[in-house]
Amino acid sequence: RTDGTRLWDSLMRMAQIGPGLRGGNNRQTLTDADREGRLLFQHWCEAAGLSLGIDAMGTMFARRAGTDPEALPVMIGSHLDTQPTGGRFDGVLGVLGALEVVRTLNDLGIRTKHPVEVVNWTNEEGARFPPAMGASAVYAGVMSLEAAYATRDAEGRTLGAELERIGFKGEEPVGARKAQAYFELHIEQGPILEAEGREIGVVTHGQGTRWLEVTLTGREAHTGSTPMPRRLNAGLGAARIIERVDNVAWKHAPLAVGAVGQIDVFPNSRNIITGKAVFTIDIRHPELAVLEAMAQEIRAGAAEIAERMGLAIAIAEVNAFDPVAFDPTLVGRVRAAATALGYSHRDMVSGAGHDACWVNKVAPAAMIFCPCVDGLSHNEDEAITPEWAKAGADVLLHAVLETAQI
Amino acid sequence: RTDGTRLWDSLMRMAQIGPGLRGGNNRQTLTDADREGRLLFQHWCEAAGLSLGIDAMGTMFARRAGTDPEALPVMIGSHLDTQPTGGRFDGVLGVLGALEVVRTLNDLGIRTKHPVEVVNWTNEEGARFPPAMGASAVYAGVMSLEAAYATRDAEGRTLGAELERIGFKGEEPVGARKAQAYFELHIEQGPILEAEGREIGVVTHGQGTRWLEVTLTGREAHTGSTPMPRRLNAGLGAARIIERVDNVAWKHAPLAVGAVGQIDVFPNSRNIITGKAVFTIDIRHPELAVLEAMAQEIRAGAAEIAERMGLAIAIAEVNAFDPVAFDPTLVGRVRAAATALGYSHRDMVSGAGHDACWVNKVAPAAMIFCPCVDGLSHNEDEAITPEWAKAGADVLLHAVLETAQI
Ligand SMILES: NC(=O)NCCC(=O)O
Ligand SMILES: NC(=O)NCCC(=O)O
Repeated sequence: RTDGTRLWDSLMRMAQIGPGLRGGNNRQTLTDADREGRLLFQHWCEAAGLSLGIDAMGTMFARRAGTDPEALPVMIGSHLDTQPTGGRFDGVLGVLGALEVVRTLNDLGIRTKHPVEVVNWTNEEGARFPPAMGASAVYAGVMSLEAAYATRDAEGRTLGAELERIGFKGEEPVGARKAQAYFELHIEQGPILEAEGREIGVVTHGQGTRWLEVTLTGREAHTGSTPMPRRLNAGLGAARIIERVDNVAWKHAPLAVGAVGQIDVFPNSRNIITGKAVFTIDIRHPELAVLEAMAQEIRAGAAEIAERMGLAIAIAEVNAFDPVAFDPTLVGRVRAAATALGYSHRDMVSGAGHDACWVNKVAPAAMIFCPCVDGLSHNEDEAITPEWAKAGADVLLHAVLETAQI
Repeated sequence: RTDGTRLWDSLMRMAQIGPGLRGGNNRQTLTDADREGRLLFQHWCEAAGLSLGIDAMGTMFARRAGTDPEALPVMIGSHLDTQPTGGRFDGVLGVLGALEVVRTLNDLGIRTKHPVEVVNWTNEEGARFPPAMGASAVYAGVMSLEAAYATRDAEGRTLGAELERIGFKGEEPVGARKAQAYFELHIEQGPILEAEGREIGVVTHGQGTRWLEVTLTGREAHTGSTPMPRRLNAGLGAARIIERVDNVAWKHAPLAVGAVGQIDVFPNSRNIITGKAVFTIDIRHPELAVLEAMAQEIRAGAAEIAERMGLAIAIAEVNAFDPVAFDPTLVGRVRAAATALGYSHRDMVSGAGHDACWVNKVAPAAMIFCPCVDGLSHNEDEAITPEWAKAGADVLLHAVLETAQI
């Protein structure tokens, strides 16, 4: 079993870096705060005797050697970056839970055949540089390194330049390190486990996601003196499409979800009809066919709204990942570990995207969820208990032992 | 008659200060660009032999002496500040048209009994510091100087500090200069005059306005993993209230107008349910009772939407002015001047608010409109012809002569 107190202390120590406004974290990828978080993680890895490699996307791989020099590593990890108003556990639990597994192996003097590598993926959140799960996408070969480097934040800085600036552009080619298996421990970010009083979610699938960015163009005009019939109000068009996204999500509920998270209107002045509105749509469903139908319904609905209102419309897909089925053997090991340890558990589908979803394309992967209070995530109030964290780390430890000793 | 070429040249010269992105202007109040525009105006006033006074709100009064030392001045003017993406004529035509009137009086060697004062009101637009028509509101005693000084822009700077920074916080108490009468020449900012092929709008009334600022508070949560029924989506609530504002305006059309111009959502991240949305509503109607009924319908509708969605709502009134009836005698002089000069004209209601609406509370006031292309204003593409500008200035000259000689 892992040391729950040590794990919790590490979580609380990391949460001091890049504090949020009300108790959460703002440690967005490739910021100074991210750099500080990485340095602390590096320090802990060195103290645990791990050898660190960094790839060209800044992903950190901290290796505990195995007994067989030929054996591929069992990778375990997640991400240390956060949303701008993020919680203390989203991603962090997976990285520090993995570190706790290695510390426990050290304490117990257990040698594994396969090396065990603790991984911190760069830019999982995608809040600053879309798409999300950027480094694991490059690792899995679904995005080119050049495309990832070229993505820009709101201030126009590129991911490549920021990686260099914080000193984490590594030498290793992305994807060169192969994995025997990948396990990721993560908070559920949804309400199911807590509501059912279960300690462990055995993640069998990840739902698919589409992010669309819509640009509506109307005409700026004076709100007071422009008669209603002469308006080309891009903000009103955005409002109608936001409503439409909600309708489409409900139509395919309970499995579907969807919302508009980012809205920018121009010129954003009280007495000017909005001339341009740019907003993003996030829709998800575990079945590819339904997800694609939803995207199609939204595109058609948005085009119809724009046409009726005389607005020009452009829709770009800024992120797309298809539903994922995790590796049945690894999923089985997670389930068996939870059972063996006496933790109540259930199978579930991940609502959020995770690095494991991309890694699953190039190596067998599986995930372990632990509950979070009220299902809240991407919120500074995100909370878990030390017991939930420890249960997750225990299951991770057992699944790793099962895999790394073979 | 005025010199249309000289007027147009001055308009084009002023338009070089604070250029916009596509041919218009960004000369927002109390910016460095505003300062530069004020200094050019001051230079022109001095060249025309006018004596300049500046009040504590930064409003500039450039006086051409009258023959009767006891007589109150006839004030004529408007504003030189613009929207962030504003046109070259909104406000500017009224100030430089007034300057052209004085230049013409100089050319013709006409002495008037009453002094004639060209006025440049500070912060008419209110885009940077709401409310609009801030300086004339203080002049008319409807807003305190302290309250005006304390208003803040998006970066948190106060109007008072910015006034000081650009060196235009004057010594004169606001409202100390009384006026015999006030005339304001302005572009219509709407489509009626152009559509009907008329050169002059005789403004009999100004419609009333309410600006409401709505804050909706929901709960930030993960877009992918939060089931639809558990969401407190403030952005969706905003979309529904935007639609409601449109419905209420249409319900009271053709006289009513309404829209939401400013929308800010937090944390504004693609995969986070919006936790907070702040947006502004601008509604207008020429009849006070209808205007108040509209505000009431919107407040009730918004409260109902928020309640149904489980969102907290707060609504603040950030600007309110009631419908205005301009002084019938002055309005009659504008109409008579247009007729005498042979310009086609019609009576009309102003859709926009103007400094004349506030001044009308403490001195007889009237307005002259000239057409603008396609009714477009608060848009960098705002356009007028030199002929329209000259017709407006001619009517202003005659109305002033009629008033200042008495
Ligand atoms: N786990 C997580 O929050 N990932 C970010 C990508 C997503 O929106 O699902
Ligand atoms: N004329 C003008 O644009 N005034 C600004 C205040 C308003 O929105 O009516």
